[in-house]
Amino acid sequence: MSQLFSLGRTCSRTGARAGTLTTPHGSVATPAFMPVGSQGTVKALTPDDLRTVGAGMILANAYHLHLRPGVEVIGRLGGLHNFMSWDGPILTDSGGFQVFSLGHLRRVSDKGAVFRSHIDGSEQFLTPELAIEIQEKLGADIIMAFDECPPYGDDLRIIRESMDRSHLWARRCRSSHSRDGQALFGIIHGGTSVELRRQSTAFVTELDFPGYAIGGLSLGEPKELMYSIVEETASLMPEEKPRYLMGVGSPEDLVECVACGVDLFDSALPTRLARNGAVFSRDRRLNIRNARFAVEEGPIDPDCDCSTCRDFSAAYLHHLFRCEELLAYRLATIHNLRFVMRLMEQVRQSILDDSFARFKDAFLKRYQPTDADVRAEQKQKWLEARRDRQPLD
Amino acid sequence: MSQLFSLGRTCSRTGARAGTLTTPHGSVATPAFMPVGSQGTVKALTPDDLRTVGAGMILANAYHLHLRPGVEVIGRLGGLHNFMSWDGPILTDSGGFQVFSLGHLRRVSDKGAVFRSHIDGSEQFLTPELAIEIQEKLGADIIMAFDECPPYGDDLRIIRESMDRSHLWARRCRSSHSRDGQALFGIIHGGTSVELRRQSTAFVTELDFPGYAIGGLSLGEPKELMYSIVEETASLMPEEKPRYLMGVGSPEDLVECVACGVDLFDSALPTRLARNGAVFSRDRRLNIRNARFAVEEGPIDPDCDCSTCRDFSAAYLHHLFRCEELLAYRLATIHNLRFVMRLMEQVRQSILDDSFARFKDAFLKRYQPTDADVRAEQKQKWLEARRDRQPLD
Repeated sequence: MSQLFSLGRTCSRTGARAGTLTTPHGSVATPAFMPVGSQGTVKALTPDDLRTVGAGMILANAYHLHLRPGVEVIGRLGGLHNFMSWDGPILTDSGGFQVFSLGHLRRVSDKGAVFRSHIDGSEQFLTPELAIEIQEKLGADIIMAFDECPPYGDDLRIIRESMDRSHLWARRCRSSHSRDGQALFGIIHGGTSVELRRQSTAFVTELDFPGYAIGGLSLGEPKELMYSIVEETASLMPEEKPRYLMGVGSPEDLVECVACGVDLFDSALPTRLARNGAVFSRDRRLNIRNARFAVEEGPIDPDCDCSTCRDFSAAYLHHLFRCEELLAYRLATIHNLRFVMRLMEQVRQSILDDSFARFKDAFLKRYQPTDADVRAEQKQKWLEARRDRQPLD
Repeated sequence: MSQLFSLGRTCSRTGARAGTLTTPHGSVATPAFMPVGSQGTVKALTPDDLRTVGAGMILANAYHLHLRPGVEVIGRLGGLHNFMSWDGPILTDSGGFQVFSLGHLRRVSDKGAVFRSHIDGSEQFLTPELAIEIQEKLGADIIMAFDECPPYGDDLRIIRESMDRSHLWARRCRSSHSRDGQALFGIIHGGTSVELRRQSTAFVTELDFPGYAIGGLSLGEPKELMYSIVEETASLMPEEKPRYLMGVGSPEDLVECVACGVDLFDSALPTRLARNGAVFSRDRRLNIRNARFAVEEGPIDPDCDCSTCRDFSAAYLHHLFRCEELLAYRLATIHNLRFVMRLMEQVRQSILDDSFARFKDAFLKRYQPTDADVRAEQKQKWLEARRDRQPLD
């Protein structure tokens, strides 16, 4: 296949890079954010909506699609692109993260992971080889190595063992992958230890994948710690290959991590927040259910060019959320995704203009991240709600 | 205001009529079906979607909008059209049907109806005058008299008392309505008694409204009985005014009742069925959750021109429903509404060509209505689920 990644301009003052990912289903200007469509649908949106918000590549999930509807079904329907009617680039996650989010529902050994399906309780066994086979059948443009993903807070010994296992699996994924026109990315682990991240970067890049991801972050660790690990790790990653930070998607994290030299991101955060009525604005995240929006004639965000802000008042969105009307989730999702896509467009343009450092400072000065405690509490609630019942997105 | 209704062609073999309703927000070719958007949103769809499926006029509900967000809010936001960003014609139902669907949550006297809000349990009092005031503030193109709607099966004495009260209220609605550019329709009652329907038609038409509705049907009575009452009633209604049959929306009922001379219909059935995974096809209603759709590459209905059938396989829709993905409800709603809109377009064209009788016979021969027992059971389940908790749509 043709060159997957070409690096365009790099920032003179930060690690930020503007490049182009070229896949069999089209090109993606980087830095890029991928909306998450775990089950073969970005929740509440059609492919047309995705194009309208400016999505380039989207992420789907091998774990979810393997369990339902199953890769045989998707294969018979012409592969994942055909199945979901999305003819743009797709990246599939291997399912490692989902399996490990199932808590006590799984057992792991070097062979692979045994777990119970969150849908019907059936026992499932996932190995690196099977994760690759599944992803080959789904037919995404980029696929991910099967990895183990320990939670933040495990001790160094556990993180190291887990990293070693992910390395073993990365090698087996590399060996078993054979589908042409599909790029397999390796995943760097090592938790929040700089030393382990160094070791992992050395090991995984030695395997010579066409692209590399940083896994095992954005799992509840302090933001500053995450930024420093991303910066350290990215600086050790090969310059000519794409760098993908998994699971990151808050506006402030995107801007910070672009500055560290990351090219690609995914996160269910913007879409999940949207369904909860939390919408982004230039200044901060807003709760549209708040009574102050009840008679707000203007849009959610006067600076936004999305169809929700163009066509509907904040008051109408407030009403839809209070009534739990289905349209609420779609309109808010369109807004939040467009917000993130526009942010990435601005980020990229500023890198091309070599004004990214200024853009970053101005953005972070203006945008007020949601209070860390509020976020931690939200995350906790979400984890509890999901525990032992649902894998993470 | 200009002439509300002009009658074009009438069928030479049935009572079917093709006409045009002209409202301040545009014209509607009749016979027409109105999608239901009780809370100021046709569930899961944007106004753009509604235009795409071919919707002309839509129905919203004064009961729902009065309770939430309240007419003061909608008034401050420029009226209902502005609020929901729909610039086509709107008809609002008065709320009578909803109040009476609340069962023991309401008390009624000639003054009006006392009921408890299904949202917060607050005591509410709705009178004919208030129902008109609410609807004037909402600003729909067509509004409805406040009426009492007894269930099917009540004895003749109760139906007569209720009818007399609806007559009294119709007169009071007529007197209190003053908003220009807004047409108030009277509603004919009398249950399934031909004699009462005759009396009611005489009384209500004597009040000289710009249009008339047939209320109190499609409440569980046998279909043949409903058709005969509609036929009888319609034949007594003035020819030059629009005739609206409330709450009817199954494909077979639409075709049958057009033949009786009805011009306008509304029903939550096509949209509610869609959200349950029941989708229309040329031959019958299908349950998309059925296993036989799991690998069906073709669309739900090969004859359909909707965006769902154009872009997605039945297998994908099956998957979305099995996963309870939000997109499922929207795609199925688009399909069912487009099915009904296209049916009405075909019906109208056949009236204009004077081939309606043939169209009707061919349609009814081919289309297999859902078995009466299945429907009765579904309706019962739905009524039970809603009883004392939610008003009907």
